[in-house]
Amino acid sequence: MTFFNNIKEIKYEGKDSKNPFSYRYYSPNEVILGKSMREHLRFALAYWHTMTADGSDPFGVGTYKRNWFGRTTKETTKNRADAFFEILSKMNVDFFCFHDVDIADQGNSLQEFFDNLDEMTDIIKDKMKEYDKKLLWNTANMFTHPRYVNGAATSNNADVFAYAAAQVKKGIDISKKLNGDNYVFWGGREGYESLINTNYGLELDNMARFFHMAIDYSDKIGHKVPFLIEPKPKEPMTHQYDFDAATALSFINKYDLQDRFKLNIEGNHASLAGHTFEHELRVARENNALGSIDANHAECQLGWDTDEFPYDIFHITLAMYEILENDGLNPGGINFDAKLRRTSTSPDDIFLGHISGIDTFARSLRAAAKIKEDNFLENILDKRYESYDSGIGKSIVEGKESLESLTKYALEHDQINVESNHLEYIKVRINDYLV
Amino acid sequence: MTFFNNIKEIKYEGKDSKNPFSYRYYSPNEVILGKSMREHLRFALAYWHTMTADGSDPFGVGTYKRNWFGRTTKETTKNRADAFFEILSKMNVDFFCFHDVDIADQGNSLQEFFDNLDEMTDIIKDKMKEYDKKLLWNTANMFTHPRYVNGAATSNNADVFAYAAAQVKKGIDISKKLNGDNYVFWGGREGYESLINTNYGLELDNMARFFHMAIDYSDKIGHKVPFLIEPKPKEPMTHQYDFDAATALSFINKYDLQDRFKLNIEGNHASLAGHTFEHELRVARENNALGSIDANHAECQLGWDTDEFPYDIFHITLAMYEILENDGLNPGGINFDAKLRRTSTSPDDIFLGHISGIDTFARSLRAAAKIKEDNFLENILDKRYESYDSGIGKSIVEGKESLESLTKYALEHDQINVESNHLEYIKVRINDYLV
Amino acid sequence: MTFFNNIKEIKYEGKDSKNPFSYRYYSPNEVILGKSMREHLRFALAYWHTMTADGSDPFGVGTYKRNWFGRTTKETTKNRADAFFEILSKMNVDFFCFHDVDIADQGNSLQEFFDNLDEMTDIIKDKMKEYDKKLLWNTANMFTHPRYVNGAATSNNADVFAYAAAQVKKGIDISKKLNGDNYVFWGGREGYESLINTNYGLELDNMARFFHMAIDYSDKIGHKVPFLIEPKPKEPMTHQYDFDAATALSFINKYDLQDRFKLNIEGNHASLAGHTFEHELRVARENNALGSIDANHAECQLGWDTDEFPYDIFHITLAMYEILENDGLNPGGINFDAKLRRTSTSPDDIFLGHISGIDTFARSLRAAAKIKEDNFLENILDKRYESYDSGIGKSIVEGKESLESLTKYALEHDQINVESNHLEYIKVRINDYLV
Amino acid sequence: MTFFNNIKEIKYEGKDSKNPFSYRYYSPNEVILGKSMREHLRFALAYWHTMTADGSDPFGVGTYKRNWFGRTTKETTKNRADAFFEILSKMNVDFFCFHDVDIADQGNSLQEFFDNLDEMTDIIKDKMKEYDKKLLWNTANMFTHPRYVNGAATSNNADVFAYAAAQVKKGIDISKKLNGDNYVFWGGREGYESLINTNYGLELDNMARFFHMAIDYSDKIGHKVPFLIEPKPKEPMTHQYDFDAATALSFINKYDLQDRFKLNIEGNHASLAGHTFEHELRVARENNALGSIDANHAECQLGWDTDEFPYDIFHITLAMYEILENDGLNPGGINFDAKLRRTSTSPDDIFLGHISGIDTFARSLRAAAKIKEDNFLENILDKRYESYDSGIGKSIVEGKESLESLTKYALEHDQINVESNHLEYIKVRINDYLV
Repeated sequence: MTFFNNIKEIKYEGKDSKNPFSYRYYSPNEVILGKSMREHLRFALAYWHTMTADGSDPFGVGTYKRNWFGRTTKETTKNRADAFFEILSKMNVDFFCFHDVDIADQGNSLQEFFDNLDEMTDIIKDKMKEYDKKLLWNTANMFTHPRYVNGAATSNNADVFAYAAAQVKKGIDISKKLNGDNYVFWGGREGYESLINTNYGLELDNMARFFHMAIDYSDKIGHKVPFLIEPKPKEPMTHQYDFDAATALSFINKYDLQDRFKLNIEGNHASLAGHTFEHELRVARENNALGSIDANHAECQLGWDTDEFPYDIFHITLAMYEILENDGLNPGGINFDAKLRRTSTSPDDIFLGHISGIDTFARSLRAAAKIKEDNFLENILDKRYESYDSGIGKSIVEGKESLESLTKYALEHDQINVESNHLEYIKVRINDYLV
Repeated sequence: MTFFNNIKEIKYEGKDSKNPFSYRYYSPNEVILGKSMREHLRFALAYWHTMTADGSDPFGVGTYKRNWFGRTTKETTKNRADAFFEILSKMNVDFFCFHDVDIADQGNSLQEFFDNLDEMTDIIKDKMKEYDKKLLWNTANMFTHPRYVNGAATSNNADVFAYAAAQVKKGIDISKKLNGDNYVFWGGREGYESLINTNYGLELDNMARFFHMAIDYSDKIGHKVPFLIEPKPKEPMTHQYDFDAATALSFINKYDLQDRFKLNIEGNHASLAGHTFEHELRVARENNALGSIDANHAECQLGWDTDEFPYDIFHITLAMYEILENDGLNPGGINFDAKLRRTSTSPDDIFLGHISGIDTFARSLRAAAKIKEDNFLENILDKRYESYDSGIGKSIVEGKESLESLTKYALEHDQINVESNHLEYIKVRINDYLV
Repeated sequence: MTFFNNIKEIKYEGKDSKNPFSYRYYSPNEVILGKSMREHLRFALAYWHTMTADGSDPFGVGTYKRNWFGRTTKETTKNRADAFFEILSKMNVDFFCFHDVDIADQGNSLQEFFDNLDEMTDIIKDKMKEYDKKLLWNTANMFTHPRYVNGAATSNNADVFAYAAAQVKKGIDISKKLNGDNYVFWGGREGYESLINTNYGLELDNMARFFHMAIDYSDKIGHKVPFLIEPKPKEPMTHQYDFDAATALSFINKYDLQDRFKLNIEGNHASLAGHTFEHELRVARENNALGSIDANHAECQLGWDTDEFPYDIFHITLAMYEILENDGLNPGGINFDAKLRRTSTSPDDIFLGHISGIDTFARSLRAAAKIKEDNFLENILDKRYESYDSGIGKSIVEGKESLESLTKYALEHDQINVESNHLEYIKVRINDYLV
Repeated sequence: MTFFNNIKEIKYEGKDSKNPFSYRYYSPNEVILGKSMREHLRFALAYWHTMTADGSDPFGVGTYKRNWFGRTTKETTKNRADAFFEILSKMNVDFFCFHDVDIADQGNSLQEFFDNLDEMTDIIKDKMKEYDKKLLWNTANMFTHPRYVNGAATSNNADVFAYAAAQVKKGIDISKKLNGDNYVFWGGREGYESLINTNYGLELDNMARFFHMAIDYSDKIGHKVPFLIEPKPKEPMTHQYDFDAATALSFINKYDLQDRFKLNIEGNHASLAGHTFEHELRVARENNALGSIDANHAECQLGWDTDEFPYDIFHITLAMYEILENDGLNPGGINFDAKLRRTSTSPDDIFLGHISGIDTFARSLRAAAKIKEDNFLENILDKRYESYDSGIGKSIVEGKESLESLTKYALEHDQINVESNHLEYIKVRINDYLV
């Protein structure tokens, strides 16, 4: 069945195109810095925002008009899969991501849920082959159901821990079945509502136990894909354990998970934690932990997760620069964890919204690549830190100095000149790349 | 010389006292939970806020009226020391803290600064003996001088690194000379103004090198006091490396500093990072890294460091509960990194401000101790997590389960009942302790 | 039908009561400053949080266990009314508030909705008589339905304006029928998602037209109750027109609505706007516009509306002081626009949560009354502003001075002494009232 | 005397120029939409940031290298005036702004300050003629000196009110003498540190009295320039009375000041109040109160005033669109209330920083003009609100409807279709204008 008969394949038509249903910056097979844009960007569509979101918010019910509702839940579920692959195909996007609950009905028992998942993943597997699409990552939704009100791996109730373990085992099985490139953990309820009634130590220990079980199981079945933690500071919980990249890395290292766990960095979550997107990417990158990204945008005046489609070309250019410096994201990619505004009610908006996000990243890739080709930022850094390339600086970096030797040096070199950084000039020069 | 002839010793007069120059809650030698209040709280006064602050802010010059200005810088410096110990004595506070630049003029060369420090620490040492006062910690100010505009250990200029090393060597020497209980690092400029021109990896590596030099030197001279990092997220820098407790711990562990480095947690800094004070204390405590605290308060509507004297008895009670659970802070303590409002211009306010902070902590200690005696929170936790004391929960905690075994369990236990946490009731019951 | 057979009437048992189902501070008929606590506080329960909320949040479905679901929507609707008055009665609370959609099913047409409202308000009217309860205010929900996605009175679609007008006419009719004391407007969607596509001028003009129609109609039917605007800065919209008290007052005065419109001030909304609750109350009070309050609490680290039950006795004491200075709220009152945490799943929590809020306000009333009896704050103000009671200050206040006369004065009085405010001392003395 | 001998006049060299000391977008005499860029933008330099700032911040002393320090204060003051006009001239900027204290030493008495102002304004008047430069606005600094610790017009001390009146009289005299286009009030300390000790009503009444005196005096001397209030929400005060545009307008209208008072809107202050810059401009514009703007940028993660030079071309384009819709700012203009980063220590940065800001506005003007020429946003609005152009919508706007008539209409038109806003598409199309 097809659902978007009025939409044709979205093609690259160049900057000056007036056709809303075209790419103005994304030319999938164009080569930039030795790789095609497709390979650089590895775009993915999110099943939840694309297929199951309805435009509801805490103060309003759904608004989106969709034509894939069937007579039964099962029929709706299948129609969604049809529509999703039609979109992927027409958008020329190679990857997708989903939660278990996005693709299958949970039924009345865990067994029933598993059966539904089996049926739907058979269907999806066929479609992946038919359309030549790949699974960037899947995950288990362990935050929507009431049982998870106090967390999953960090629940105070051991039965909930067990239930979550079952969901994740199934998720890893599905990852193997669909040949997923990564497996993601977003700990939506792993955190606390109030510190007062929280056994913080036990909860974090349990979360680590949970992750080690996941490692053990994936090793056992021979599906050693990267596991990705997605940091978020707050909402729905008052405080979430994976607050930001640094906090998640602290946890990963403390519990010796670093060989298998990397990070899935999200723009909106960075903002909520008081950081820029590029900061979180840098922290992950410098710790060899930049796994994948969730692309979206937050208006910084707002204190909750809005998951807007990205459009800020200045900051996305800095983000793309981090990705280039990371030598790309592969096996990770760029997943649009972005939802249409509640007022974008038309099915067309699914296409228009994703085009806006894709072109924002494509334009930013072009800008970042040019910055790199010009060595614009590299030259600034080289000059700025040159004192560490020789003399006392080199000796410090090589570990040859001590407080005593440096005191001797400082007593003789205590009149220090400070060079200007000219930051105002640098920032506006970056703007010049955003053409 | 004395400077507060109108002020008598501040004494405990009980709750109903109408005398502003009395303690209404702090009774130093009263025993609570087996320790004197004095031992529990280990209060310290900060030399900078008490002696050198002048009431200036970014939009205004100094307002405080002080009578210790002499005819020369040296005379003023000495008068300050006299006045400071007079205050410590009249307040009945046992400890103090200072930056190097608080106590001595920096002169025109590093050598001159060192000479001035030697002279002033001789004087302070004598006063410590005379008044029976102790040094909680000292530190080096590596953020005020222009040379530190780009950081100290994380400066792009190796000569600045060397200068900072010399200051810290001297600081550790002073700590030994004055028998300090801890040594603190607040990395005021260790961070970035813009990520664009920052070599994040090199800067953090250098910061670690710096700290290892400090460890090596203190080992060498046989003065192995705890080194404390004080987290702060931003201001003056756009982003500071020691963003919060979790981030600082991530750094400490990554660079293998955990044996000697702990945290000095500040209330206002917690707020600026989007946390509660008790959260930061919990994170530190659960990682065996709660070293000491900087006591102050932030109005949460404000986005900069206001260092208000603490008065929020609800949150300070939760903070004191963390401290009791930590079995106290010793060898750390509670340092009032708190400054008078710009409008509190009178010398009397030095006393009134500190009394307000001390009584806030003393009242909160009384409340927290009662909560502990009643096992009020302990009982809540015991009941809430009881599923991990036996059965499947116990088996999880003991490491005996796997995703497969838990899947089997979950398939048989998939109807889970969620008990209420009754949080509203718990919170208002805590209020009942704040009498 | 009764729904809480295990709950007895909640009675005042005094501070030391260990019975969770008792008031420890609220003694309804106890007289304070010449009025009963009941008259001072005029507590109301909110139909929506109490009866229709289910514990869902943006990331999770409902969690609350409720026993009033019937076989049909109509039966459920009626059961809710039964349960609600049982709660009001057992809590000994005199007032209640509701949205139209809380009490009646919207059916498939506007006429059907009106018919359902007629039927349910007949039932509610009988119950009000039976239980001796009063309607503090009702309102129309003009934000949940998809038609309101772009606002109600400020929608870009005139048909939506008309629909909203019909809902408000019915709301005012219901207010008259049930003898309501006030009528409230919370403009949930009156604002913009993006300024780019917004005709700001037309939308605000339309909102004013809408309010004038409401005035005209209420005049016509002889039901001239106060109309109350409830400010909120953001969420669900990016920016809401009634941002805060000052903004709403600006609108009210610009459009000449001040004779009939006052404000309903909410604690959580104050926080989201960057203000304290007491600030918003002061702004309203000083403009003769303090109509009523929505009582709840926001953890200030969180950037969305959490509607927590109030427990912060320091700030609620300052709020109650504003209310005392306003000579009370009558015909307004204190409505608990407060919801149980998602983890407070038990029906008992309905009682425990409201007891916590009621006792917080009762305890704070006691503290504020004592502050007033002692003239504690009044004396501070009198002394602080005494320069305006005589001399040049009096002459300024009386409008007798000009820039020229004051220049003459200033040239002769240019050495000005600044007295300390002693704020640290004042704040901790307020704490002393919170016993 | 000249101070920038190595800097030549800054000229427009077009987008592709690699010369840092050139304009790439600002071509002063180029005509856009019928006006020269010079007339559109009316750029001004701020005396304070340009001449008196030293790079200090709350945690650090000054860092800027400047060559205009003389042997005496008077000589330095005069050198600054020389240097300032050299910069204005080399930058080809037509306007400037200053505080009284920026240009003259305050001496030891008010009379001495006035004498110094007379001398310096004689000098400046000559220079204005010599260089053909104009005064956009001047203002009185009533926040730095200790006397203003509790405010100026809102001080609790009537002598301070008088002193402030004298400063403002002198400021208006200077405005007349130098033929200023506007006169500005930024109420740096007009607000409260704590609501507890504040007589809010008296303080606001006094502020209004103060402004009426200013109107009366300017009328009397025949210098009826616009008076501009500059909103800012907080810092240095906990809460400032001119919180944002809406709050300032509420005050202006309440006290009947609207005929002479407009607003000076600042970008950074908008952010601190939780608004976008374009929002504040819209509020001012729709109330016929957009007087002038202070151009700068805030990184939205930061909670204090950073006054960064603007570089965000997306938001400045929206700001310029508001200015075009306002038919320009004349007699207001665009003043760079922007300071160099503390690390931009070189005198060259004065030029580089201002070039970055000027080119950002120039590029944004080009983008906004193109949006306007294409009617891009106008068409969106026309279509979106078309329901108010005829039928029931027209009738509503014309004031012909009532709740009753609309109820009748709604009962017959209760099935309402909601059109998509396609916001994602609109936003990314705006990006396409930023070339």
